[in-house]
Amino acid sequence: MVKRVSLATVSCPVGRALDAIGDWWSLLIVRDAFDGLRRFSEFQKNLGIAKGILTTRLRNLVDLGVLEMVPASDGSAYQDYVLTKKGRELFLVVVSLRQWGEDYCFKRDEPHSALVDTTSGRPVGRLELRARDGRALTSSDTTVRKLDPQRTRNAKAARPSR
Amino acid sequence: MVKRVSLATVSCPVGRALDAIGDWWSLLIVRDAFDGLRRFSEFQKNLGIAKGILTTRLRNLVDLGVLEMVPASDGSAYQDYVLTKKGRELFLVVVSLRQWGEDYCFKRDEPHSALVDTTSGRPVGRLELRARDGRALTSSDTTVRKLDPQRTRNAKAARPSR
Repeated sequence: MVKRVSLATVSCPVGRALDAIGDWWSLLIVRDAFDGLRRFSEFQKNLGIAKGILTTRLRNLVDLGVLEMVPASDGSAYQDYVLTKKGRELFLVVVSLRQWGEDYCFKRDEPHSALVDTTSGRPVGRLELRARDGRALTSSDTTVRKLDPQRTRNAKAARPSR
Repeated sequence: MVKRVSLATVSCPVGRALDAIGDWWSLLIVRDAFDGLRRFSEFQKNLGIAKGILTTRLRNLVDLGVLEMVPASDGSAYQDYVLTKKGRELFLVVVSLRQWGEDYCFKRDEPHSALVDTTSGRPVGRLELRARDGRALTSSDTTVRKLDPQRTRNAKAARPSR
């Protein structure tokens, strides 16, 4: 995707994050990993995804450092897929999608799964964005400070490309 | 995508949110709308996206109620695309991707755009998930409480399908 996007987009962390995660399947695999799924067959069953697509996505997530392969927890010859720190830090991406989905993708009173605080058993609070001084912020309180394209070009020229 | 996923996934707000948003292009369009882009040609130029793909994605986002078409702000015959409340509430999805992208998709000292609090001009704080009593929560402090499949089936049978 990177080849098709502008320099401004490439200097945007949102664009890079989306480019890295790749597609919705990858994020659904990450969600399942948060839910405790570890085995190829578990992901395959839960997602109803073709084996070839799952193989590719898992390999990409391992290459990206979001998942790592570890010996199976049951002592069998299988490999388990577990989230790395980089993978676990996708948690708030998954939570933000969940909270928006809860608000807009279900009819009133339609049942859905819930994210609960394990200690209390109660649903978690809403995600919040705050200023450094603690004020709650909405989108209209914020601005994206773009890079000066000249500065970006110089910075790119000064180091080897990825 | 819904047809290929399990009942458990369909009762999951993350799965429904991903299914609704559709693909990364849609979320990049939403990001650009947060940045103030309003016109077809502006999205097209910034994303470097084929016109046909952009047309389809914009139509889907309007049908979904994430964007709405309004008379152009400059008084011309064009239509502008602006975020609805439902669209604006995707803000934290975009912010969570941004913060993960900042952490993991840039080299140290590599320049990138920044989300700033307009009042102070300073970068915003980190997104935080908290329990109802205010404790900060990570993924390991939470559990997804899945639905009883029997309850889901009964609930679905009790109302007309979408």
